[in-house]
Amino acid sequence: MPKQRIQVTVWNEFVHERTHDAVRKIYPEGIHAVVAEALKTKLGDSVAVRTATLEEPDHGLTDEVLSSTDVLTWWGHAAHDQVRDEIVDRVQQRVLEGMGLIVMHSAHASKIFRRLMGTSCMLRWREAGERERLWIVNPGHPIADGLQDEYFELPQTEMYGEFFDIPAPDEVVFISWFEGGEVFRSGNTFRRGKGKIFYFRPGHETFPIYHDENIQMILANAVRWSAPSGSPYFGDGRNIAQSLSPIQGEHAVDESLHESVEG
Amino acid sequence: MPKQRIQVTVWNEFVHERTHDAVRKIYPEGIHAVVAEALKTKLGDSVAVRTATLEEPDHGLTDEVLSSTDVLTWWGHAAHDQVRDEIVDRVQQRVLEGMGLIVMHSAHASKIFRRLMGTSCMLRWREAGERERLWIVNPGHPIADGLQDEYFELPQTEMYGEFFDIPAPDEVVFISWFEGGEVFRSGNTFRRGKGKIFYFRPGHETFPIYHDENIQMILANAVRWSAPSGSPYFGDGRNIAQSLSPIQGEHAVDESLHESVEG
Amino acid sequence: MPKQRIQVTVWNEFVHERTHDAVRKIYPEGIHAVVAEALKTKLGDSVAVRTATLEEPDHGLTDEVLSSTDVLTWWGHAAHDQVRDEIVDRVQQRVLEGMGLIVMHSAHASKIFRRLMGTSCMLRWREAGERERLWIVNPGHPIADGLQDEYFELPQTEMYGEFFDIPAPDEVVFISWFEGGEVFRSGNTFRRGKGKIFYFRPGHETFPIYHDENIQMILANAVRWSAPSGSPYFGDGRNIAQSLSPIQGEHAVDESLHESVEG
Amino acid sequence: MPKQRIQVTVWNEFVHERTHDAVRKIYPEGIHAVVAEALKTKLGDSVAVRTATLEEPDHGLTDEVLSSTDVLTWWGHAAHDQVRDEIVDRVQQRVLEGMGLIVMHSAHASKIFRRLMGTSCMLRWREAGERERLWIVNPGHPIADGLQDEYFELPQTEMYGEFFDIPAPDEVVFISWFEGGEVFRSGNTFRRGKGKIFYFRPGHETFPIYHDENIQMILANAVRWSAPSGSPYFGDGRNIAQSLSPIQGEHAVDESLHESVEG
Repeated sequence: MPKQRIQVTVWNEFVHERTHDAVRKIYPEGIHAVVAEALKTKLGDSVAVRTATLEEPDHGLTDEVLSSTDVLTWWGHAAHDQVRDEIVDRVQQRVLEGMGLIVMHSAHASKIFRRLMGTSCMLRWREAGERERLWIVNPGHPIADGLQDEYFELPQTEMYGEFFDIPAPDEVVFISWFEGGEVFRSGNTFRRGKGKIFYFRPGHETFPIYHDENIQMILANAVRWSAPSGSPYFGDGRNIAQSLSPIQGEHAVDESLHESVEG
Repeated sequence: MPKQRIQVTVWNEFVHERTHDAVRKIYPEGIHAVVAEALKTKLGDSVAVRTATLEEPDHGLTDEVLSSTDVLTWWGHAAHDQVRDEIVDRVQQRVLEGMGLIVMHSAHASKIFRRLMGTSCMLRWREAGERERLWIVNPGHPIADGLQDEYFELPQTEMYGEFFDIPAPDEVVFISWFEGGEVFRSGNTFRRGKGKIFYFRPGHETFPIYHDENIQMILANAVRWSAPSGSPYFGDGRNIAQSLSPIQGEHAVDESLHESVEG
Repeated sequence: MPKQRIQVTVWNEFVHERTHDAVRKIYPEGIHAVVAEALKTKLGDSVAVRTATLEEPDHGLTDEVLSSTDVLTWWGHAAHDQVRDEIVDRVQQRVLEGMGLIVMHSAHASKIFRRLMGTSCMLRWREAGERERLWIVNPGHPIADGLQDEYFELPQTEMYGEFFDIPAPDEVVFISWFEGGEVFRSGNTFRRGKGKIFYFRPGHETFPIYHDENIQMILANAVRWSAPSGSPYFGDGRNIAQSLSPIQGEHAVDESLHESVEG
Repeated sequence: MPKQRIQVTVWNEFVHERTHDAVRKIYPEGIHAVVAEALKTKLGDSVAVRTATLEEPDHGLTDEVLSSTDVLTWWGHAAHDQVRDEIVDRVQQRVLEGMGLIVMHSAHASKIFRRLMGTSCMLRWREAGERERLWIVNPGHPIADGLQDEYFELPQTEMYGEFFDIPAPDEVVFISWFEGGEVFRSGNTFRRGKGKIFYFRPGHETFPIYHDENIQMILANAVRWSAPSGSPYFGDGRNIAQSLSPIQGEHAVDESLHESVEG
């Protein structure tokens, strides 16, 4: 049996690339085009990659697209509020059912990430083009595959600093050091329902972060890691009337207490 | 300096107690009255307890009440949908700022718990009056203070079974065994923002669970554990223009990229 | 490039199978033979499997064997104390360097598991041939791959009950329900250094647990999951004399303070 | 009932203070004397503090001392190897039974910490007197009580850098930024058995770290946090012959399989 391809959908709000020359110069066809190309290059036949953007109908995330997506990557910055709530509902449901989600950089403030985290997801930032070192604090994690040294550097980045208001991650893979005095949990995993989520800090619209070799490798690793696995999802509430054996001292149930009540 | 009292608000939707005789018999003045009394008895001078219910203006959770609440306990079952979204927003914000939250039994399906978890929070259930054993799996946890044996029992309960669709808890304190064949993570802690959350499974409207000595002791422990602690909350996004020392190779920032953009 | 095979070494103390007829009947060539065969059947060309036992020189775990082992599975019960400490040192070091370790059933009390956990690893038990249900509490985990229902059953097992004295697992995949009134965290993951560890409860010498289809599938999943991944291991202490840029206000170091001192 | 005092034992190997003038100048009576005094000042009547050092019989950690110790703080650097293994056994057992343990700075390489962690506990270091910023990443944690800002600084410290080879902490409270380019998980909690462990990075023999106000406050917080709590410890292995109700299909047990076998 040939192994099935991982179906990846690369989402981008695709706003700044069309309104700002400085961004267009780095990402002439959009950040999504560069990310999609990187994933194809790194993962070859093992993935099928398509893209989707904010302005498409349903933001390109129809039921049909989502139901055939194994891993969704998300980039947004200027237009988080324009993402419609029912699309956020739909993406959340798919994550719970097992779809992987890779949340990139400024998408920490996206509706979908905040929805899945339950916190503000806010952080400190500074845009001064400073040096960043990403230290590996979980060297055995598959998302660190292929990295050869204890850290890697980005010469010029926007700083993101703690306190990053997220739930305690299931796993922290990278912690960033910034020239200007800050630290940041930069590579964090979370499980929600059956879905695996990876938040990855680097990435910006006026620095060529997504052209970086290490960044591309890590995104490819994250796609592999977050692809659906495990058993079916059992996250629906359900009345299990049948017990293994009859209950001793069973009591009468007043069904009227349960009209229109879940759980 | 006298230690300040923990300000506790005991919230209850207070529906079944007024519509069903079987419930009224066990909780004539409402579940909240029994829980509030238990906390006063167990915690004495170290707490100040008040109650709030769904039908009050703002469900009894005005800004004034919430801003003077250290720990909020939440019980609901039949009327989750009637809790207004702006009140849920308000409670969530207070949790992030440090207010403790104790989520009881069927409140697993409450808006506030689902909001803070980001998952469906659904589970399996059966109402057959079966025996439950709660095993301690974290004996050093302050929420287990005063328990003398490896487990304690409830002779007749509604069953809640896995899969319980919650994020991996920060700590699991109790795991339940049910006569009919199920298990459940019954005492779970989570931090969201600066706030400490405890989900506690036992509790029901037609079994006298909140009259139980161990249950009352655990709720009192949870109040103490979830009371605000730590530093201030730093969960607001903020531009930190100033770096520790001047950035080498600082680059020009296009401010127009950041109009009306957070993070 | 052909994907490399995962090198698996199946270790067994191999005592009871030779001293007790009841055990020999179920595992005539030893538990290791059945486990090794199961892995070959389930994983085919993607693994190369060999076995090792207590009575071999170095318990079959020479430097050569260990350095070419990607995943080590461990079964012991009667002879934990006969495992030499220097072999335990060696296995521990290999785990830190990235070798996967699958700890089976009564090996909870093995020297290597206790060494890696730092706790007593003790538990409650009863050998009455009772029914066990293993509930999936982490349905998206790769170790649950292929399971189709919310739980699976073993009709007759030795009971293991909480409190199981282990550190909080990184992930809990299965929680067991036992007919006689107990629960148990039955499938637990831990990372130590770069190595991934899976403790799996089921398995016994007089019940045919390792002939069970689900058990074999889970062991195969665990082999895949625990195979080495990530970056190199950086767990050696090291003096990093060179800083990124010269330290402001650098102070004189009294080297004599560091004679023969690590860290 | 008057609340009982927390019994604290402050342990120090007490070597460098007697052999090196630079150390003696900062800690004329030993690091333990300064730490003990700080705890008394900060915690007043709520603690009773004594000290113990390497050269005392049993390193000052007799059964009598340990059995009356609620929280043990540990500092060592030059003489880890001189701590006798049976004393390490004894301390480990007491931690499992519920004694708090605060591991300070270079004690990351102590026998007791490595024993409880199961990993190498090694790290990168540089002694250049550089600036350190400790960022709060868990603002609601009781160990951060009283801190008023997002971070605090130490003007001159020895650097400790990642990869720090420890198991994933239960909670990370502080992450350090170092002037020279490194980061470090500096305030980490772990539970082992019933005991609560806090590793705290700052502290050194030639910098006056333990005279710092914030450091003293955090150590005092850690004493309160790690004091024993919860139920009794159930970490002894035990055969539970009695099941809740008779096992269906009970099978004959061959007792000879269990001679001299634990678990």
